[in-house]
Amino acid sequence: MPGEFELIARYFTRAARRAVLGVGDDCALLQTAPGMQLAVSTDMLVAGRHFFPDVDPFLLGHKCLAVNLSDLAACGARPLAFSLALALPEAKDAWLEPFSKGLLALADAHGCELIGGDTTRGPLTICITVYGEVPADAAARPVPTQALLRSGALPGDDVYVSGTVGDAALALLALQGRITLPTELLLAARARLEQPAPRVALGLALRGIASACADISDGLLGDLGHILERSHCGARVDVDKALPLLAARQAYAGGAAQFDNAYDARTALQSVLAGGDDYELVFTAPPAQRSVLAALSDTLELPLTRIATIEAAPGLRLVDAQGHAVAHDFASFDHFAATGGLL
Amino acid sequence: MPGEFELIARYFTRAARRAVLGVGDDCALLQTAPGMQLAVSTDMLVAGRHFFPDVDPFLLGHKCLAVNLSDLAACGARPLAFSLALALPEAKDAWLEPFSKGLLALADAHGCELIGGDTTRGPLTICITVYGEVPADAAARPVPTQALLRSGALPGDDVYVSGTVGDAALALLALQGRITLPTELLLAARARLEQPAPRVALGLALRGIASACADISDGLLGDLGHILERSHCGARVDVDKALPLLAARQAYAGGAAQFDNAYDARTALQSVLAGGDDYELVFTAPPAQRSVLAALSDTLELPLTRIATIEAAPGLRLVDAQGHAVAHDFASFDHFAATGGLL
Repeated sequence: MPGEFELIARYFTRAARRAVLGVGDDCALLQTAPGMQLAVSTDMLVAGRHFFPDVDPFLLGHKCLAVNLSDLAACGARPLAFSLALALPEAKDAWLEPFSKGLLALADAHGCELIGGDTTRGPLTICITVYGEVPADAAARPVPTQALLRSGALPGDDVYVSGTVGDAALALLALQGRITLPTELLLAARARLEQPAPRVALGLALRGIASACADISDGLLGDLGHILERSHCGARVDVDKALPLLAARQAYAGGAAQFDNAYDARTALQSVLAGGDDYELVFTAPPAQRSVLAALSDTLELPLTRIATIEAAPGLRLVDAQGHAVAHDFASFDHFAATGGLL
Repeated sequence: MPGEFELIARYFTRAARRAVLGVGDDCALLQTAPGMQLAVSTDMLVAGRHFFPDVDPFLLGHKCLAVNLSDLAACGARPLAFSLALALPEAKDAWLEPFSKGLLALADAHGCELIGGDTTRGPLTICITVYGEVPADAAARPVPTQALLRSGALPGDDVYVSGTVGDAALALLALQGRITLPTELLLAARARLEQPAPRVALGLALRGIASACADISDGLLGDLGHILERSHCGARVDVDKALPLLAARQAYAGGAAQFDNAYDARTALQSVLAGGDDYELVFTAPPAQRSVLAALSDTLELPLTRIATIEAAPGLRLVDAQGHAVAHDFASFDHFAATGGLL
C-alpha cells in the first residue's frame, strides 16, 4: 500500500500555475489582484450520506468539486484553486486513480488548481475548500463587494431558477428502489445526481444583474428560503405556472402511473420543490432585467425560468393558477433531520 | 435534536470582524491588504485516528484549530480566519457547546475568526481550513514571498527546534497503556498532546531570520526530512549533545526503570525523534543569526535548541558525541502505514 506522501505525490501533486505556492509546503499561498476579494467555501461529503460508498470514483471526484464550485457560482466568483482533505479506509490505486482523474478534469475545465490538502486513513470522507475571486465594490452596502449574496432581494423582484430541478432527487428515489424509472429517464436523472454541472458561467454573468443568489443544494424551497430570510422578505410561487417548466416534472406530467404506484403527484412535486443536490442557481432580479436575462439564457443555452415574485411580507406562499394557497410542508434537506441520508 | 441550521446559528455564528463577509452565505469573503498574500492550510482530524473518540470536547475544539494554526506558524503567517467542516454522529449540545468553546477560545486568542463551513451527520471528523496573511516579496526567488518555506535551507545553516519534543508521543504511549508514567509527568505530557500551543508568535518573528521552517506534526526527523528534501540538502544530528536538552527525555534520563520495563532508552529516543503531534517548529538559520535567536528565545520565553547542522550531502545522519554514526530507523508518522493510528 502506498504511503501518505507517496500517494499525494502520485495523484495530487501538479505544478502551481496561478497560485504563488501550491502543494508541498505547510501552507499554500494565494495572491489576489488589487481590488479583488477571495471567496471561500467548504463542503464535506461523507460516504453513505452524500454518496453511495460504491459510486464510480471518477464521478465522485467530479461531484465533490462540483458542489464546491457551485458555491462559487452562487456568489459570482471566478474559480482559482482548491484544497482537498481526504479520509480513506485504505489507499488503493484502483480507487485513487479514477477519483483524481474525475476531480482534476473538472478542475481543469474551470481553471481551478489543487494547491494543498491532507490525507488520512478513516471512514471515506472528502472535504474540499474552494477559492475564487470576485471584485470588491466600496460603494456597495452593507457588504463592499460585487459578489452575489443571499441578502439583496427586494419586493417586486422576480425569482428565477436555472436549468431543471428535482432530477437528482428523482434519481435518488430510483437508486434507493423507491420508484422505478424508464431507462432513458433514469440515465438522464442519474447523470444529474452523479455529475452535476456547476453554473459558474451563469454566476459570473449575473454579477450586476441579480439582486440575490444561492445554489440549490438543500432543495429549491429551502434555498429560496435562505434568500428570503437573509433579505427579510417573502415570495409567492405559482406552482401551476412555474413548475411544469421544469423538466423532471414535465417528464411525468400525466404519466406517473406508468412507472410505479409509489411515485405519485405528491412525490413528483416533492422532488421538484424540496429535492436537493441539483446545484442549479436560484436568484432574484428586478423586472427591468427580464430581456437581459432572456438573452443570457440564449447565450448560455440554459433555461432561466421565472418561478416567483418577491413580496415584502415574510414567508413562502405557494399558490395555484387561481391564486389559491397550496398547502405544503416540503422541508429542505437537513443533515441532522431523522430522515436525512442516503441509506 | 437541533437541525443543521439551528446548530450552526447556536454555536458557530458570530459577526465577522475582519472578513468582508462571514458565516451565512454560499461563500465567505476575505480581502488581503495590498502587498499581502493569503496562506491557506487544511487539516482533517478523524476520531480513533487523531484523537480518542471520548476526548474532552473542549480540548478537541482547541486542538483541531491548534494543528491548523501551527501550519500558519510554520509559514510565518498571521492568522486571519478559518472554515470548519464537521461530521457528527449526532448533534448533541453536551458535546457541541464545549467543543465550540474550546475552538473559539483559541481562535479569539489568535484573532482568527470563523467565517464559514459545513455540518453533516457522519463518523466524527473535523476538517479545518485556516487562512493567514504574509507579505509578498517580489525579490525573493523562486517564490516571491516573505513566507517561511521548507525549501530555503543552505549548507552550514544551524537547525533548531522550539520548545520540547516527544511529549505528546509519551502521553500517547501512556494513554494506550503501553507505559506507565508518574502522575505529574503524565499530566504535563497529556496537556501537550491534548492542548498543543501553536507557535504563531515564533513563526512571525522568524520571518527574515530563518532560512526554512516546518512544524512538527509527523515527528522531528520526519519533518526535518521534509525540509532537507525540499532544500536538496542533508543534516547531521548530534543525538548526545542535542537531545538531552529536550524535556521529555530529560525527565527520563537515568530514571526509566522506575516507570515501566516497556519504557526503555530506545522508546524514549523514538518518542523524541519520531513522535508526532508536538506542533513545535523545526527551522534552519545561518550561524550569523545565533545571537538574534538567543534574544528571541528570551523574549518569547521559549527554548530554541540547536540540534543539527545542514550539510550539502543529502540524507539525515545521526551521530553520537564522538561523531560515530548512530543507526536509526525512526519512521515519521504515515497515516497509511500499517502501524498508524491511535487505537
